[in-house]
Amino acid sequence: MKKVLIANRGEIAVRIIRACKEMDIETVAVYSEADRDALHVQIADEAYCIGPRLSKDSYLNFSNIISVAKLTGCDGIHPGYGFLAENASFAELCEECAIEFIGPSSSAISSMGTKDVARETMRKAGVPIVPGSVGIIPDEEEGLKIAREIGFPVIIKATAGGGGKGIRVARDEEELVKGIQITQKEAAAAFGNPGVYLEKFIEEFRHVEIQVLADGHGNAVHLGERDCSIQRRMQKLVEEAPSPALSEELRAAMGDAAVKAALAVNYKSAGTVEFIFDHINQTFYFMEMNTRIQVEHPVTEMVTGIDLIQQQLKIAAGEKLAFKQKDIKIKGWAIECRINAENPAKNFMPSPGKIDMYLAPGGNGVRVDSAMYPGYSIPPFYDSMVAKLITYGDTREEAIAKMKRALGEFIIDGVETTILFHEKLMDHEVFKSGDFDTKFLERYDVMNS
Amino acid sequence: MKKVLIANRGEIAVRIIRACKEMDIETVAVYSEADRDALHVQIADEAYCIGPRLSKDSYLNFSNIISVAKLTGCDGIHPGYGFLAENASFAELCEECAIEFIGPSSSAISSMGTKDVARETMRKAGVPIVPGSVGIIPDEEEGLKIAREIGFPVIIKATAGGGGKGIRVARDEEELVKGIQITQKEAAAAFGNPGVYLEKFIEEFRHVEIQVLADGHGNAVHLGERDCSIQRRMQKLVEEAPSPALSEELRAAMGDAAVKAALAVNYKSAGTVEFIFDHINQTFYFMEMNTRIQVEHPVTEMVTGIDLIQQQLKIAAGEKLAFKQKDIKIKGWAIECRINAENPAKNFMPSPGKIDMYLAPGGNGVRVDSAMYPGYSIPPFYDSMVAKLITYGDTREEAIAKMKRALGEFIIDGVETTILFHEKLMDHEVFKSGDFDTKFLERYDVMNS
Repeated sequence: MKKVLIANRGEIAVRIIRACKEMDIETVAVYSEADRDALHVQIADEAYCIGPRLSKDSYLNFSNIISVAKLTGCDGIHPGYGFLAENASFAELCEECAIEFIGPSSSAISSMGTKDVARETMRKAGVPIVPGSVGIIPDEEEGLKIAREIGFPVIIKATAGGGGKGIRVARDEEELVKGIQITQKEAAAAFGNPGVYLEKFIEEFRHVEIQVLADGHGNAVHLGERDCSIQRRMQKLVEEAPSPALSEELRAAMGDAAVKAALAVNYKSAGTVEFIFDHINQTFYFMEMNTRIQVEHPVTEMVTGIDLIQQQLKIAAGEKLAFKQKDIKIKGWAIECRINAENPAKNFMPSPGKIDMYLAPGGNGVRVDSAMYPGYSIPPFYDSMVAKLITYGDTREEAIAKMKRALGEFIIDGVETTILFHEKLMDHEVFKSGDFDTKFLERYDVMNS
Repeated sequence: MKKVLIANRGEIAVRIIRACKEMDIETVAVYSEADRDALHVQIADEAYCIGPRLSKDSYLNFSNIISVAKLTGCDGIHPGYGFLAENASFAELCEECAIEFIGPSSSAISSMGTKDVARETMRKAGVPIVPGSVGIIPDEEEGLKIAREIGFPVIIKATAGGGGKGIRVARDEEELVKGIQITQKEAAAAFGNPGVYLEKFIEEFRHVEIQVLADGHGNAVHLGERDCSIQRRMQKLVEEAPSPALSEELRAAMGDAAVKAALAVNYKSAGTVEFIFDHINQTFYFMEMNTRIQVEHPVTEMVTGIDLIQQQLKIAAGEKLAFKQKDIKIKGWAIECRINAENPAKNFMPSPGKIDMYLAPGGNGVRVDSAMYPGYSIPPFYDSMVAKLITYGDTREEAIAKMKRALGEFIIDGVETTILFHEKLMDHEVFKSGDFDTKFLERYDVMNS
């Protein structure tokens, strides 16, 4: 791999460019008209405008991105996360154009992208799945039969849905019959596919996910778990590694399951198998697999010492993994706070605009992944996450202490940010106890605590 | 320890305040009139002006510093490095005032501060010393006798000298006789003590030093070595851990010797035993012990995972070391580049002044210890080191790659800095080979390479 196009923006584009530089790989940035002054444009070796500010015209513009890659002689395209990262058609187009898509094959993306197919693949591979239907349910009668078997409440899911869309909870038989009909209709309209399936609804759980790396030569390993239970409306706000909730047995079992999941779809590159961890019953179930690098990947890097973006680049170049499962050791504790340009006191309303004073925290055990600089204007057209603050210590207590200290130093003047929210969270007794689930932010009003 | 006064400025004051915050210790900053806008003043819980801009009137002003500590109810004073860090009288004054001096006892500082006494203490403790005289030489005749035994060239050292002052090399008998007379005269005038001693002059060596921690309860450990051979006029510019030159046997032997040295003076707190490593003959000799935290301590923190400032605070509070020698593992490789506000193209001429744009590098494996911010004016009255850039990787090659990448991102506009020097150094074949000694910068013109 000699030259890579980064088909993304913001902190993840900067992150990928940094890894390329460290590996002596040339970098080509692309940007929308709204991102002319962006940091990723400034630090890449070359940079090209690929369209207007709206993502569909720029960061999602297949042909412009492929054209820049071809014209600049790139060997590969790194999609980052979001945008084209899990777009099987784009991955396929790269394959056709003989440009390495730095990620899994288009077929692996597809097979994990269709939810009932993924569920069935996992079942066959021996990965625990939430009790429910086998594939699409043909009608309400079959739905009722399954619901009686697994017990209410159940969740009705559109196979083509995702990101919290096309799902509905049913707590009794009446709700189920009605729910199936409505969800099928809505799914047909929204996704062009009316298929729905049923799962037992687990109301209280922790979000625990396993990072995997697979080299496409038959080698796959896991790099331990991340706990991402601190979420607001399905959006993760804080992630940590390891999870404060897993026993060693569960950790090993979940890791094994994740490797099985990856091997079942001939996975290549970095990926994440997300699990519902039913902490009350101490069992876990496959939720979904994210076939890309994730926002929260740094916490895994901190506790394993393995650079995941560098690994992606090596794997894309055809290299085999240089380590085996037994070589991977989890050491210490890492926490990541997502710093969003949002006002946490006003329902996390986005707060784009110009940054006047900017000073990131530093020192021992502090990592900042950001694309901000003094004078930078955060455009209103994209995701509001503007920095990731990651701290590392021997223990969870140390990582929290470092996070509090680092949050206290972080200066981002001119826009509202989630820094104050995170400061209050780090002081919250329930968060500090480590004993919480994905409903934490529904249960506790952190800003007024 | 509940409240600590930091008797220093710049990055080390910020570093210590950070450690205190992480341990829930209140902080009191002190500052000279030239440092009203300094970062350490802004981030401490309280801050007091202790005098005019010249160090002798402020950062070296015993009574003002003690007064602030007393008036604010501080339990301890952390001296950082430089200024009062190795001032036995100040440590003694703290002892008298019942304020914990966060460092060793005044007697340990004294016994290592007088060079021939330290040398003799080390000899008795079984620490290898450079062949030479036992204590002060009475006259030239005795000097000649010793020089004939150990062989020329020899070095004449004033016992009260230090920092490159009061030393003179003699390559033959004539130079020796003359040299002893001149050095005695100069030492009497400069230090009020004419005593000189002799050592064999080792011309080519690496500067390798061992970090030690001792708790004052009889427990002492070492945390491996740092290689500081990249020096300009005795000033370290780049440090790394581990050393590329040590075998495992030498590493263990040097570590043992350093622990012996610390125990010999009932050492408490963090300290560094510096060695002359004769890489040609694969032997090492005691050079001196620095009875303070050192500028380059972060590289040791990166490879051991032990926070040295936190350890100092714990030891000062009377705690015992929580780990034994066998628990300390060296993992990976760390490099530190000292970023000085100096022009490396003009003989490293200091370049104080106002910083316009400031953006520190970030991302995986990068640590920045600095007291700069956008708009900060670097005063001309103090040391020109304004930041330490530390990178960490699995191997030396990785740490160098990360350093190159991070140096390339570092923006400090408005003043000249040593960033370009370090970029060229990281690309220098001899530096990359790891095979060099303290004469590296005399031998190679890095700026024109």
